[in-house]
Amino acid sequence: MRFAVAMEAVHTYSLVHDDLPAMDDDDLRRGRPTVHKAFDEATAILVGDALQSLAFAHLLGSPDVRAAALARLLAENAYLMVEGQARDMDGEHAKLAEAEVLELMRTKTGALLASSVAGGALCAGADAGDVYPAGLKLGLAFQIADDLLDLTADTATLGKRAGKDAAAGKSTLPAIIGIEASRGRAEELLDEALAVFAPLGPRADALRALARYVLSRKK
Amino acid sequence: MRFAVAMEAVHTYSLVHDDLPAMDDDDLRRGRPTVHKAFDEATAILVGDALQSLAFAHLLGSPDVRAAALARLLAENAYLMVEGQARDMDGEHAKLAEAEVLELMRTKTGALLASSVAGGALCAGADAGDVYPAGLKLGLAFQIADDLLDLTADTATLGKRAGKDAAAGKSTLPAIIGIEASRGRAEELLDEALAVFAPLGPRADALRALARYVLSRKK
Repeated sequence: MRFAVAMEAVHTYSLVHDDLPAMDDDDLRRGRPTVHKAFDEATAILVGDALQSLAFAHLLGSPDVRAAALARLLAENAYLMVEGQARDMDGEHAKLAEAEVLELMRTKTGALLASSVAGGALCAGADAGDVYPAGLKLGLAFQIADDLLDLTADTATLGKRAGKDAAAGKSTLPAIIGIEASRGRAEELLDEALAVFAPLGPRADALRALARYVLSRKK
Repeated sequence: MRFAVAMEAVHTYSLVHDDLPAMDDDDLRRGRPTVHKAFDEATAILVGDALQSLAFAHLLGSPDVRAAALARLLAENAYLMVEGQARDMDGEHAKLAEAEVLELMRTKTGALLASSVAGGALCAGADAGDVYPAGLKLGLAFQIADDLLDLTADTATLGKRAGKDAAAGKSTLPAIIGIEASRGRAEELLDEALAVFAPLGPRADALRALARYVLSRKK
């Protein structure tokens, strides 16, 4: 549970900072005003900074011997996430090739999602190395689904502004290879991840349901 | 060394974010343009975020058994630092009483400095609990010296903009009790810290020299 809380604290910090005017400049998140809209920019910067510290303080406050390995996994992948976000900002107005977009998604979205899957394995006493690559595929499928929703869903359903990638001329996978081909690619990635989770048997039912939800979600 | 690197990564992240337009809005740091001036705001936000992750990834990448305790100490005090900065932003245009200013300095500046002293003790296999309060006093002395330099030194010497606290109407200790009384208070705090370090003998010579430098520094 401490690892889950720490993971969600890092995830939330990343959303609060990504929504800032200097970054993606979003007014709406989960159907509510973003932190800098509800309060101010200084508060949003500090809330993000505090959530990142809190994640590590909370996780490392555990007497469990696995806490240090989980905190290291989280820190390394939180770093990769920022690297991906920095590349994303750089490439926002450049035309990227398909391989470049996939590589960007691997760090920006894949790393944190993969570390949540690998951390689950570590908590269960399993080898995290086996499921990390599957988590990375799931992260790519998640990002493709996100990019598809940005194109096909409306703002009220999403709870965040829709259509902003196309408006910003962003090189997403759907923008490069089209909606149908992107959906096919996401389904392939999901199937590959599910194949890795298959030998885990019934105790991985929840993991498989979550993996399928990555593509079936409507928001 | 890994702890020192992690500490400095957290310290530097805090400076990069504090200099942002939405925070202290500074153009100059260590005699050079601040990160958001040399690059842009998005870069400064991401550099700070990445440095914080890097601090924990680097420290927890150590095989040393003390790494987890050091990372916990750093995370808890990095969190307190942000709490102090948030209180500082809140109080910027309010008149604070002396006790409130001291309490604010304890979190904003004292916590991180105290954790660097306590971490040194942990690395040496000593009890961190004894020296943490002395580090806190040193942190207060450091902040008072900083506020005095802001009033008495010039921008070229400081390498950062001087006179900004008075211009912002900030409640610093010198603004409340005056320059001479503040200098006296800082010297008392230094003496109290040095008294705690006295029993450590010659192997704490460097620590004592650093403690004295907190007040003797001209920038």
